[in-house]
Amino acid sequence: MKKKIVNDPVHGFITIPQGGVQALIDHPYLQRLRRIKQLGLTEMVYPGALHTRFGHALGAMHLMTLAMDTLRDRGYPISARECEAATLAILMHDIGHGPFSHALESSLLSKTNHEQMGNFMMGRLREQIDGPIDMAMAMFEGSYPRHFFKQLIASQLDCDRLDYLVRDSFYTGVLEGTVGATRMIKMFDLADEQLVVEAKGIYSVENFLNSRRVMYWQVYLHKTTICAEEMLIRVIKRARELMAMGSKLPMPEWLQVFFEREITIADIEAEPDLLDSFTLLDDTDIWICLKYWQKHEDPILSLLARSLVERRLFKVELSQTPPSEAYVCQLIEQVALLKGLTVEQASYLVIQGTVLNAAYDPDAESIKIVQRNGDLTDIREAADLPHIEAMAKPVVKWYLAYPK
Amino acid sequence: MKKKIVNDPVHGFITIPQGGVQALIDHPYLQRLRRIKQLGLTEMVYPGALHTRFGHALGAMHLMTLAMDTLRDRGYPISARECEAATLAILMHDIGHGPFSHALESSLLSKTNHEQMGNFMMGRLREQIDGPIDMAMAMFEGSYPRHFFKQLIASQLDCDRLDYLVRDSFYTGVLEGTVGATRMIKMFDLADEQLVVEAKGIYSVENFLNSRRVMYWQVYLHKTTICAEEMLIRVIKRARELMAMGSKLPMPEWLQVFFEREITIADIEAEPDLLDSFTLLDDTDIWICLKYWQKHEDPILSLLARSLVERRLFKVELSQTPPSEAYVCQLIEQVALLKGLTVEQASYLVIQGTVLNAAYDPDAESIKIVQRNGDLTDIREAADLPHIEAMAKPVVKWYLAYPK
Amino acid sequence: MKKKIVNDPVHGFITIPQGGVQALIDHPYLQRLRRIKQLGLTEMVYPGALHTRFGHALGAMHLMTLAMDTLRDRGYPISARECEAATLAILMHDIGHGPFSHALESSLLSKTNHEQMGNFMMGRLREQIDGPIDMAMAMFEGSYPRHFFKQLIASQLDCDRLDYLVRDSFYTGVLEGTVGATRMIKMFDLADEQLVVEAKGIYSVENFLNSRRVMYWQVYLHKTTICAEEMLIRVIKRARELMAMGSKLPMPEWLQVFFEREITIADIEAEPDLLDSFTLLDDTDIWICLKYWQKHEDPILSLLARSLVERRLFKVELSQTPPSEAYVCQLIEQVALLKGLTVEQASYLVIQGTVLNAAYDPDAESIKIVQRNGDLTDIREAADLPHIEAMAKPVVKWYLAYPK
Amino acid sequence: MKKKIVNDPVHGFITIPQGGVQALIDHPYLQRLRRIKQLGLTEMVYPGALHTRFGHALGAMHLMTLAMDTLRDRGYPISARECEAATLAILMHDIGHGPFSHALESSLLSKTNHEQMGNFMMGRLREQIDGPIDMAMAMFEGSYPRHFFKQLIASQLDCDRLDYLVRDSFYTGVLEGTVGATRMIKMFDLADEQLVVEAKGIYSVENFLNSRRVMYWQVYLHKTTICAEEMLIRVIKRARELMAMGSKLPMPEWLQVFFEREITIADIEAEPDLLDSFTLLDDTDIWICLKYWQKHEDPILSLLARSLVERRLFKVELSQTPPSEAYVCQLIEQVALLKGLTVEQASYLVIQGTVLNAAYDPDAESIKIVQRNGDLTDIREAADLPHIEAMAKPVVKWYLAYPK
Repeated sequence: MKKKIVNDPVHGFITIPQGGVQALIDHPYLQRLRRIKQLGLTEMVYPGALHTRFGHALGAMHLMTLAMDTLRDRGYPISARECEAATLAILMHDIGHGPFSHALESSLLSKTNHEQMGNFMMGRLREQIDGPIDMAMAMFEGSYPRHFFKQLIASQLDCDRLDYLVRDSFYTGVLEGTVGATRMIKMFDLADEQLVVEAKGIYSVENFLNSRRVMYWQVYLHKTTICAEEMLIRVIKRARELMAMGSKLPMPEWLQVFFEREITIADIEAEPDLLDSFTLLDDTDIWICLKYWQKHEDPILSLLARSLVERRLFKVELSQTPPSEAYVCQLIEQVALLKGLTVEQASYLVIQGTVLNAAYDPDAESIKIVQRNGDLTDIREAADLPHIEAMAKPVVKWYLAYPK
Repeated sequence: MKKKIVNDPVHGFITIPQGGVQALIDHPYLQRLRRIKQLGLTEMVYPGALHTRFGHALGAMHLMTLAMDTLRDRGYPISARECEAATLAILMHDIGHGPFSHALESSLLSKTNHEQMGNFMMGRLREQIDGPIDMAMAMFEGSYPRHFFKQLIASQLDCDRLDYLVRDSFYTGVLEGTVGATRMIKMFDLADEQLVVEAKGIYSVENFLNSRRVMYWQVYLHKTTICAEEMLIRVIKRARELMAMGSKLPMPEWLQVFFEREITIADIEAEPDLLDSFTLLDDTDIWICLKYWQKHEDPILSLLARSLVERRLFKVELSQTPPSEAYVCQLIEQVALLKGLTVEQASYLVIQGTVLNAAYDPDAESIKIVQRNGDLTDIREAADLPHIEAMAKPVVKWYLAYPK
Repeated sequence: MKKKIVNDPVHGFITIPQGGVQALIDHPYLQRLRRIKQLGLTEMVYPGALHTRFGHALGAMHLMTLAMDTLRDRGYPISARECEAATLAILMHDIGHGPFSHALESSLLSKTNHEQMGNFMMGRLREQIDGPIDMAMAMFEGSYPRHFFKQLIASQLDCDRLDYLVRDSFYTGVLEGTVGATRMIKMFDLADEQLVVEAKGIYSVENFLNSRRVMYWQVYLHKTTICAEEMLIRVIKRARELMAMGSKLPMPEWLQVFFEREITIADIEAEPDLLDSFTLLDDTDIWICLKYWQKHEDPILSLLARSLVERRLFKVELSQTPPSEAYVCQLIEQVALLKGLTVEQASYLVIQGTVLNAAYDPDAESIKIVQRNGDLTDIREAADLPHIEAMAKPVVKWYLAYPK
Repeated sequence: MKKKIVNDPVHGFITIPQGGVQALIDHPYLQRLRRIKQLGLTEMVYPGALHTRFGHALGAMHLMTLAMDTLRDRGYPISARECEAATLAILMHDIGHGPFSHALESSLLSKTNHEQMGNFMMGRLREQIDGPIDMAMAMFEGSYPRHFFKQLIASQLDCDRLDYLVRDSFYTGVLEGTVGATRMIKMFDLADEQLVVEAKGIYSVENFLNSRRVMYWQVYLHKTTICAEEMLIRVIKRARELMAMGSKLPMPEWLQVFFEREITIADIEAEPDLLDSFTLLDDTDIWICLKYWQKHEDPILSLLARSLVERRLFKVELSQTPPSEAYVCQLIEQVALLKGLTVEQASYLVIQGTVLNAAYDPDAESIKIVQRNGDLTDIREAADLPHIEAMAKPVVKWYLAYPK
């Protein structure tokens, strides 16, 4: 069968099987992901971090292929149909995301989420793509009997995480966060249709979890990124309020409905137009809004929008304990004075919240190590040091951001 | 002096000198480059090629720093002011570019070009940045007495080319095009204030020219990229025609003026608003237009726009000789039939042209090798094989693109 | 000043300052290190691990140069003489090593060690090299007033460790053990002439310690390497016994004296011939012996020697608890039976011992982090998780090896 | 089937099929290659170039596996037995090499060569290894009907060359010589059982040939390496003469016969002891001789030997034309005076010769490109520039070396 090859800077040549998989990649739902950055506003801190959800989808697909090759080499039968379904599933794992995922999910799409959206969109793809989308959805949900497919798609050690760690590390330049994804996958094995890792892969798993922790603190929860995202959330919120009060804000028409209404998944199911609008949304819409709104008459909206467009980000303080209320009040007053705003207006511009991270979730399905004698152990017990135990403990930090 | 450090995936840590240089980087003219991709529509072929002119500017600045360190280590005096000016100059070398440079320059900005725009913008920065912008401009133009500064900024072996080759290779994944930029720079030397390369660097220069040739054919002149760019040019052209005929096309207001008038550099100088509009332009404006126009009633415009948004690119044929007129006519008729268009309309969709490349320009200032005895030789003569000679010969190919 | 450049696969171009440093590198004491592998018999497990102490010395010198550049860039004055002394010191840090360091130190050179030998050899170099060897020795010992030089040469975060981690990782292919050495060094700072690390380097330090731990378990204490080394120690021991009993064993004459006598550093000081012999010793001498002895009439010696030459290594078992005496006796009897040996002979071939590792030594001088406010903290307290604490706890394992 | 995995710094994890292949790797003939450096004395110039013929054999085997996977993926049937035979063949391709191949072949083994030796040794392995050695030998010789196997083992674009280019580039640090071996292999195809390269691989082939040319001039024919090798050849020659005149020279007994007699392949076939001696030979034997002989009473022998041990290499001059006889005579007289030697003795120390390289051999079987329409073209015609043509022209240089 003829194959297409794509050149990926992270994994090298990626082979795309023709047929349903190629059709899915060519579908507008997937192509839209070309215009949604994987790490949102992280590029404000790490200027190389421009990669998209589309590239990540291809990369995760590539790792899925390697994982299936490894398992087949070990003698486990995987049918061509299962293989195609797993490939389709991993490709679709992010299609429900909107632009700037965190910001939009908590503000613009607050009544639904990317999992619901993704699930609904998969249902639509079932009618349009000639391939085992049903089986892919079953794998995704975990209802497919061979549990390891679900684990390869979404677990604490899946092709999604492996690709995004190595990809995010590559594009940010945070080399401490890199992971030997292909090496890791070569140590995958099965036990009772469950995904497990060979005993000699234990240091690789530790390294993987540690990389994840490093990426959380150095990248995903970088205080300046969080600040930029919170500023964007405030933009959305302020824009909604202004519209609710009757202001007219220029914006693409397909975005408008999400500002005017709080859309639920039931709405999406009931009104076909809403999905059409959603599937037009990408990062460019938000940027256009910011460029329009930086000249808006509302001082809050324009200040926030212009600060993002020109990357004049707020000052951020990170601390191990919550800031005192008195300190926050004092900051608000300072900002009011500095920017000629009322205290109420200024309070929009003093942003606080918490970030929290645990590299390993002890309550989720655990990563299992298979010993030479066939015994299975949780990685926390298999490791010779209390590292993993330590990484299972969540770490919380408080941030406070305000205009300079 | 306090320094800021930026993590670049290509060169690692890049140190940013504080003062004028930091002020320039923080200026909206530079920040705008964050939203302009270095390689325009190349990401349609190489999905990783998402890097921006902003990242390239930082990278070229980094190489400039290395080049000055090398020359100072060799004992040539370079003053702090010269150093700052050279840094400012290389940072500003691309500020005049609009989005999708080739497409816009030949269609939307056809009466001026990025050099003129850049030059005008540098003049404006002179008033806003506290640093030797004047000296930087002199270096840029070549009027500064020490000629090697001009050569480091813009010549056949400058920091611009070194950075973009290594960066484009990194982000596309076309490893054959990579260049040991820092190694190359360590072999820089001066002879009579002219930039030359040590004799033992001859293979590195050959390798650099060869990488450039490879990147031309594999990336810059990739037939699918050319096809996408030509499609975009047709979009712009068609939109202009429709507007001229009275159609209303939705688009951001700062872009509109460039569709309505053919702006010259004299206009820019005379009307301050035009520069304000220009400095708002970036890739997102074009994408928004494409998203709007894919539903436009004009079948040509909507077909082209939708094809770009959904990445359903035309079929391209590349040949060593021009296609016959008969063949082109036949294609136009096929397209008319296929798409239900008139022959006149269809002729919009059958795109032809030539691409041409010579890796080394024998008419431009040559790359000089300094022998152990101090003699200078042109790289073409210093090389032991007629490679460079061969690369100085331009190669032409014809392309022909049409809807599938 | 003219400089020589060496191409190092790990760090790229390494510049060698001319004068005393070049003279030291050209000295036979340094050139001898070309024939001593950095990781001894590790190449039996990792076939790429062929790098020598010479390459490591150059690499550590390169990192020392970077460290001094960083500190000077931060504004700390370092004189040219201090710079040369530090460079000489790091170059000399391993000159006292013999071939297969561990095996020889514990068997052939059991009455002295590489530190004593190195120190004595530095004294000799003082007379032969035109450079500040005295100051270098003072830095080495820690008697030089500016303490950070000692720390850059020998501490828990020195140029020695940084180079060997990245080098050993590179040549073994154990990528999990890699370290961003140049990035780490860019975060070096001083506080009261003590080496400290910037607060934002905390994850890099953690990563460094973690890499070290990974390299210990994956490489330095790999059970098969330990087995090969223990086999070599048995060869040396057996050869000594046979010689003591009057057997003649072929070997290079400069090696012989180390088999016949137990040399102390006092002997070295008293008898100049001994140093001449020592400085001829390298890995090739041991290999020649093994090739000769594989045909020796003593069955123990020949079996061990042949097993090493043909890489037919013993079976190794690793355990968390010591093997029972009964199990060991049983193994000895099996080996006696299998190889047609007496129980006494067979007991030579059943090897047991322990390996032990703590990635961070809490009793040694600690790695200090400098906070933004100038406070110094031990890395154990600065880290947000009890990782480092965990790594300070030594881990012990038992091994047991015997012929298959 | 259980598989063993080896960690290679160049290619990452290499899987070793169990059975005959593992048995061959474990055979003393292959294990001997652990002690023979791939690039002989090149480590005197590139201190990292310590890799062995053993590592190269494993690497070439790995690429062979990838090549067969690629061809199978394209639908060409390759039986398990053919696969094993090809693997065995590539593993054995260098077993006939002695230490410091060039030096020994032209001096010590001047009446035979590594091909003859290798062939004879393969014949012996046939009796000892349980696997299709016969088929492997047929592939090696080209008598196996499917010609592409021969081409994968030994042609102008084979797994041998691909591995050694990437490996030599990796270990020397000459990054300009690197090659995307796995990418290259993905473009392999068959046409009539002949190995060909896909049309889009044309730049990769060009890049491969260019890398080869770069490696020739920067590494393989580096003047200092050639000088060191020529010095070693003089050592061997002088030692032979001294022995012929009755001198006793210490050396391992298995090496002695090669100094005393000029061994032919017929001798090897007739006297089994000779093969035993040959298969003990490795780099360590030569180094031991040099260490012994540096104190020999013959001034020529000791000067040469000591210069190699202490790396005090001769001065080398490289030129495009042969040096004049008068100049050479003058140098000899200078050396005689400088070293207190007779003119006859001094003439041993003034070394001259030529080096010659053509990156592409137009008389050997050509590299074929398969166009999209199925046509085959020689790479020389397929390339758009006369590069390959140029590389087919041999380049000659003269060297002249003498003591400083």
